[in-house]
Amino acid sequence: MSPEALDVALREHPAVGRLLSPLGRRAALPFGIPQQSAEAKGCARRATIGQITDGEGVPLALPSIARHFADLDRSESMLYTPQHGLQRLRTRWREHILAACDTPPPMSLPVVTAGITHAISICGELFTAPDRPLVIPLPYWDNYDTIVTMRTGAPIRTFPFFQGARFNTPGLRAVLAELTGPATLLLNFPANPTGYAPMADEVDGIIAAVIDHPHPLAVICDDAYETLFFEPGMYGRSIFGALSLAADPERHVICKVDGATKELVFFGGRVGFVTFSVPGRAGEALAEKAAALIRSTISSGPAPAQSAVLAALESPTLAAEQAHVLDVLGLRYRALKAALDAHAVPYYPFNSGCFCLLPLPEGMDAEHTRKRLIAEQSVGVIQIPQVNALRVAFCGIEAEDIPDLVERLARVIRQPAAGLTTT
Amino acid sequence: MSPEALDVALREHPAVGRLLSPLGRRAALPFGIPQQSAEAKGCARRATIGQITDGEGVPLALPSIARHFADLDRSESMLYTPQHGLQRLRTRWREHILAACDTPPPMSLPVVTAGITHAISICGELFTAPDRPLVIPLPYWDNYDTIVTMRTGAPIRTFPFFQGARFNTPGLRAVLAELTGPATLLLNFPANPTGYAPMADEVDGIIAAVIDHPHPLAVICDDAYETLFFEPGMYGRSIFGALSLAADPERHVICKVDGATKELVFFGGRVGFVTFSVPGRAGEALAEKAAALIRSTISSGPAPAQSAVLAALESPTLAAEQAHVLDVLGLRYRALKAALDAHAVPYYPFNSGCFCLLPLPEGMDAEHTRKRLIAEQSVGVIQIPQVNALRVAFCGIEAEDIPDLVERLARVIRQPAAGLTTT
Repeated sequence: MSPEALDVALREHPAVGRLLSPLGRRAALPFGIPQQSAEAKGCARRATIGQITDGEGVPLALPSIARHFADLDRSESMLYTPQHGLQRLRTRWREHILAACDTPPPMSLPVVTAGITHAISICGELFTAPDRPLVIPLPYWDNYDTIVTMRTGAPIRTFPFFQGARFNTPGLRAVLAELTGPATLLLNFPANPTGYAPMADEVDGIIAAVIDHPHPLAVICDDAYETLFFEPGMYGRSIFGALSLAADPERHVICKVDGATKELVFFGGRVGFVTFSVPGRAGEALAEKAAALIRSTISSGPAPAQSAVLAALESPTLAAEQAHVLDVLGLRYRALKAALDAHAVPYYPFNSGCFCLLPLPEGMDAEHTRKRLIAEQSVGVIQIPQVNALRVAFCGIEAEDIPDLVERLARVIRQPAAGLTTT
Repeated sequence: MSPEALDVALREHPAVGRLLSPLGRRAALPFGIPQQSAEAKGCARRATIGQITDGEGVPLALPSIARHFADLDRSESMLYTPQHGLQRLRTRWREHILAACDTPPPMSLPVVTAGITHAISICGELFTAPDRPLVIPLPYWDNYDTIVTMRTGAPIRTFPFFQGARFNTPGLRAVLAELTGPATLLLNFPANPTGYAPMADEVDGIIAAVIDHPHPLAVICDDAYETLFFEPGMYGRSIFGALSLAADPERHVICKVDGATKELVFFGGRVGFVTFSVPGRAGEALAEKAAALIRSTISSGPAPAQSAVLAALESPTLAAEQAHVLDVLGLRYRALKAALDAHAVPYYPFNSGCFCLLPLPEGMDAEHTRKRLIAEQSVGVIQIPQVNALRVAFCGIEAEDIPDLVERLARVIRQPAAGLTTT
């Protein structure tokens, strides 16, 4: 898109121009090799792109590589994917997002990323900067510091995740009220590390807090753990759809980041997506900026994984396979809650995702306790120093082993004094 | 690595500290989830990482995904790889690099990246900044603008690639002589877009130009097209080894970027590597910084592709498969040279890689000519406006079709006047 076309496109959704960071403004795909190659698609002799093929676009793949991907389309899995990702995968994922929405929200076509972190990184680069803070509930996944602050220099502003047993919407309102210029809000439901997603009656309040904010606001819906909802009465889907329907194009860009990592249990695949609440040409302009950030870091995403995800989305058994995983995780979730209750181990509210978070008693240090759990109980957990708590991932423990896990945790967490004397 | 340990490590190779950009200095892996998870590796109950497994670390992969990677190790291909990449792959690639060196150079363990662009991007982020220019021979691959200047704001300083029919070492010396502070030099052999790599008698001069430079200098050896050498008397390998042996740890960091993309003809895989001429703890510190940049953009690389590349490197037939591809490309190379000579189409010197570069007569615009070639001759090529030339990729055209390709090119390139009147 030329600078002039970009200007025209962004007039359709003025918030984009107000929210872009300096790097986001610079990000543009040059009229480079992929574009010139696309223009030559129908030619008899294509001498454009530096891929080793047979002259008809069929890759001269080495058998030692290709045999591992034998049932995937050879060209799709061995050659470069477009910067935006495989076109059919983008369309399919759009349908996948729309299938979870009651009313279709305004949205761009998804851009395929190399995993969900990559989608967050792209949003961070598009919208954050030293004077464009990132607002997150505390505690948060510590990699947001690396993804956003380390790279773009944007400060992180926090508010406490919970108010009582509920998401802290008043706290969200309070921290937004302190902002005087463009900013980015990141909401991760189901959350890492708390394992909490909103109940149905919480969502209107969250949306109102965002919509009432008078300044330009990009909202990143980090939906990495979407579909892993375990309680009745939950909202049970991403807030992206409802937020995008309520958003004001003068002030808001809502970004949905999601992917195959957890939803399709394909952690190593590195297939994520970023989708904007921006339809039409302004949405295409944002997607092109995302593609420029892809071109400038990894050039294009992993083809075999994109090809496999596309095939899976077209598989008639996929829904049943996903339901099976949800059942397995639901059993683990209920076993964990029952065991924590049985041992009177305190926990933050949790209802979804892969984790629960255990607050530690005053004077019991999270890092010290984590090390004791390894040494004394042969239990590995993650310390969350932000709130002096331990994160327990129940997604990797069989339900039948969870009582034993909790017993081991309880021995240390409920006996701090004895523990401290032994180390 | 703690800030204190980093300081100690970098004393072993002072050039690293002198060359790091502000982002390179900031880049650090926090004591985060991957590290805490690694510490819990031997535990009876591992509740650390958010991967959905059976409790023994075996992924609960969906059959609709996993069936496409059935002969790869399930855990290796479905779960997260380490930030640095699969450990065995790093070791294997180190052996692969050493196998092409007469004398083992000082070097770090390679870090696996999501393709070769990603390795260049990491070097760009580590070493370039608005006051840390990137020096490249002209013409150059236009994505360097996107990878480096768009992201880091570093200016690009060029010198003409050729002096007569040889690499322009005097031009390299002249542009380096203008530098007064830390900078980065990028040398891409075989080159994109020129298709040139040094002859054996050119390499000492290039190395001397680098070593004689009195200021801190990072050198990126972009070895994307390594192994594709077609003429006798060529140096025929990367200059990384010889440069690293000659380098001064007070002033130089030599970076080798390479990968499976072209060498293993696995364009869609996105498996690249970055290796530094820095052994010991200073090399580990640089590798950790590269891993931090990976963690902050894509979290980790594509597991199925890394797993397949590792398997291919251990395949007894790999060398024969690569030799076959080299034979096929050699036939195309010779057919192209013969046809260009037969039609008296002028070309820049070329001897390697995937491309040749055709200078256009004065008054014949590269973009205009590219469009005419599509419209009139059904031929797709890439315009290189930097030197008003056309890049012809012979890696995707069968040898028997190359005379026809050149005939079509010659019709337009040798008849500029007639061409201009028809459009």
